[in-house]
Amino acid sequence: MPYFDSASAAPLHPVARQALQASLDEGWADPARLYREGRRARLLLDAAREAAAEAVGCRPDELVFTPSGTHAVHTGIAGVLAGRRRVGGHLVVSAVEHSSVLHAAAAHEARGGSVAEVPVDRWGAVSAAGYEEALLPATALACLQSANHEVGTVQPVAEVAEVCGAAGVPLLVDAAQSLGWGPVGGAWSVLAASAHKWGGPPGVGLLAVRKGVRFSPQGPADERESGRSPGFANLPAIVAAAASLRAVRAEADAEAARLRVLVDRIRRRVVRLVPDVEVVGHADRRLPHLVTFSCLYVDGEALLHELDRAGFSVSSGSSCTSSTLTPSHVLRAMGVLSEGNVRVSLPPGTPAAEVNAFLEVLPGAVAGVRERLGVSEPPAEAPEADALELDTLGLRCPQPVIELARAIARVPVGGTVTVLSDDEVARLDIPAWCAMRGHDYLGETPRPAGTAYTVRRRS
Amino acid sequence: MPYFDSASAAPLHPVARQALQASLDEGWADPARLYREGRRARLLLDAAREAAAEAVGCRPDELVFTPSGTHAVHTGIAGVLAGRRRVGGHLVVSAVEHSSVLHAAAAHEARGGSVAEVPVDRWGAVSAAGYEEALLPATALACLQSANHEVGTVQPVAEVAEVCGAAGVPLLVDAAQSLGWGPVGGAWSVLAASAHKWGGPPGVGLLAVRKGVRFSPQGPADERESGRSPGFANLPAIVAAAASLRAVRAEADAEAARLRVLVDRIRRRVVRLVPDVEVVGHADRRLPHLVTFSCLYVDGEALLHELDRAGFSVSSGSSCTSSTLTPSHVLRAMGVLSEGNVRVSLPPGTPAAEVNAFLEVLPGAVAGVRERLGVSEPPAEAPEADALELDTLGLRCPQPVIELARAIARVPVGGTVTVLSDDEVARLDIPAWCAMRGHDYLGETPRPAGTAYTVRRRS
Repeated sequence: MPYFDSASAAPLHPVARQALQASLDEGWADPARLYREGRRARLLLDAAREAAAEAVGCRPDELVFTPSGTHAVHTGIAGVLAGRRRVGGHLVVSAVEHSSVLHAAAAHEARGGSVAEVPVDRWGAVSAAGYEEALLPATALACLQSANHEVGTVQPVAEVAEVCGAAGVPLLVDAAQSLGWGPVGGAWSVLAASAHKWGGPPGVGLLAVRKGVRFSPQGPADERESGRSPGFANLPAIVAAAASLRAVRAEADAEAARLRVLVDRIRRRVVRLVPDVEVVGHADRRLPHLVTFSCLYVDGEALLHELDRAGFSVSSGSSCTSSTLTPSHVLRAMGVLSEGNVRVSLPPGTPAAEVNAFLEVLPGAVAGVRERLGVSEPPAEAPEADALELDTLGLRCPQPVIELARAIARVPVGGTVTVLSDDEVARLDIPAWCAMRGHDYLGETPRPAGTAYTVRRRS
Repeated sequence: MPYFDSASAAPLHPVARQALQASLDEGWADPARLYREGRRARLLLDAAREAAAEAVGCRPDELVFTPSGTHAVHTGIAGVLAGRRRVGGHLVVSAVEHSSVLHAAAAHEARGGSVAEVPVDRWGAVSAAGYEEALLPATALACLQSANHEVGTVQPVAEVAEVCGAAGVPLLVDAAQSLGWGPVGGAWSVLAASAHKWGGPPGVGLLAVRKGVRFSPQGPADERESGRSPGFANLPAIVAAAASLRAVRAEADAEAARLRVLVDRIRRRVVRLVPDVEVVGHADRRLPHLVTFSCLYVDGEALLHELDRAGFSVSSGSSCTSSTLTPSHVLRAMGVLSEGNVRVSLPPGTPAAEVNAFLEVLPGAVAGVRERLGVSEPPAEAPEADALELDTLGLRCPQPVIELARAIARVPVGGTVTVLSDDEVARLDIPAWCAMRGHDYLGETPRPAGTAYTVRRRS
């Protein structure tokens, strides 16, 4: 059964499983104890730290193990903000960071700190100039992901690190999506990562803090992991995480080249096989295994169910999935279509045949959802009026866009359709629809109930 | 090789291992996802939560999984303190709590809160009256362990919960040492525990918060685990934790009865086999598998090494172990001897033969350490003076007490020996020595360098 959501969680790598099982016997004792079981655990912990540090590109004493990537991010951000409190309370993040970073930023704001969000371009990338502009004399820390988790765009970490370095601001890199593929280049100061993203077990994150970075751990004291990660070490999982990182790295270049071919195939074919689809994310500067696209007139959750029934496990940043009514903040920051969004992230070892099977199934799945939603080509008819207004209050994504698409033929070229909607996603998806269909988006006007979005027919 | 430190970490229970291995295949995906791997993970997580809640004695929606017992304690204390901020910033803890509780209390104090420590008696037990006295109108939370981790004394949780309940103060119980043996009785409000203490895997803690307790999670937001425990769920370990808790509970009564016999044997024999030894902790109200004793004139670390060489893994609360120069806060709060301290905690399944072997080895191990320290019976000699003063500045535990024991014969009955020491442990061990040897402890006087402890010879 093809599982195409390795950006969420990768199945356990065989090396991780072996290491985990071996260290269940050798590594259950407290590594702080003086007896043989404790000494054995300490040796395993030290060896795991050395292996992980080598893969990260830091010194072993700069790296600690945390219970998750989220803990690594939270601890890293809180520790640097507290350590550099005298500099100021200003934090810089990109608009497309993982929620763990954005939630830490929100917590910082709630405590009286200030946060600047660096915008991204249509492909999801920040620029070094964007960071340069956001840095203030009071900036204590800047954060940037190595690559985006939803659209795969690789960020210019080295350039941003240079800009931050010149300003004396440490850069924290969330390397969760990329560490399995290779070390993060550039002069970063703090790095966070998560083992279950590279095929390691859940329960392990990495936090590397370069010597010289002012760091003040927050929360109750705990002597373990250099005082930076409280609680009894999850040693079997740590050993498995380090061993599997080494193993996936050994296969990374060859596997990246192989998966890149499969992802390229999806990128090329999906726009040919499925009408009204937009591939999002950077075409070249991207992770090798991940591709994201959005389908007009499609309910993301319905499409996920359809694909799941056909045997394919994928993810979505659409608003109408996962019990959230807001679309992915990443797609929003990029200003791209969010409806019918599908993220495909291939685990290492994915056979080409599975990708081909997916491309065979996808067009029918999309068509099926569209049919159930009553999407059909509007019949050619004489325009009714120069300007139409549609009341879609109470309708949720993708209905407002479907109504708009039906109505556009009812005005002449040069005429306008105004959509009144109280669905937040309309703000994103109506302009995106205009860009895809070649119509003019004229802007939005607040109304007593909802917002009016106006479109001019161009063809 | 006998491992007698299950109070630190227990070897993995066979059921935990089976459940862990099974759920590595079934439980690696994100339980929040809609596809089959996610749904399967969600089912496993729900079942684990139900099983754990049943063992704890709470509703499943009152229980969350954390990355460790320490995280459960930190999160529980911070959440209740914040949720009841309006009541006040006063926290009550016992003097013998686990360091995770005391460190959380210290962090609370550092942020401007106040903390009261409830004292214990010579057996390590608090009293309900002690809590009653400590509760203030501004008390937001009281904390009490179910049983002490160093001496095994079981605390009167139900009585303390009653006192707290009458005052409208929630009681957080740290059940780390006892949960494998049975549920915690009484009307507690919050409960924390740690899976690797009962033979579950490392990486899992439990936090139960009864409905109606005001609880405000601290730190960055995260939607997982009811917003109370951030980070990707360590599902294989959670499944193993729940399964093993159920398994150890099924065996708990029989195993407790069996281990109680072995521990009783150690308690009775050790005082006969080893001269100058004191068994600490409550004789009856105690955990079934744990016994702690201290040996006069013995360096704890040297004794641990000696026992390790003989194949026995035990722990110590002595000052001279584990790179700390202060003795265990538990022994200090109890006012008992801390030198040559040994904690024996038997894992379930410990055969009687191993305990017998330990009792055979112990006397020689203690004697060996004493011999190397130059401990010998002071030769009977004519008293030199009515009052002697010993300068032991710079000498570390157990040397000041050894010097005192040598010198006591040099004064007549009724005469005094004053020990000048800058070793913090002397404050604890000299009075304890007097109590064991039947001499009078006359008190301490600060000196320009160190402290003078005076003893009157009684026999």
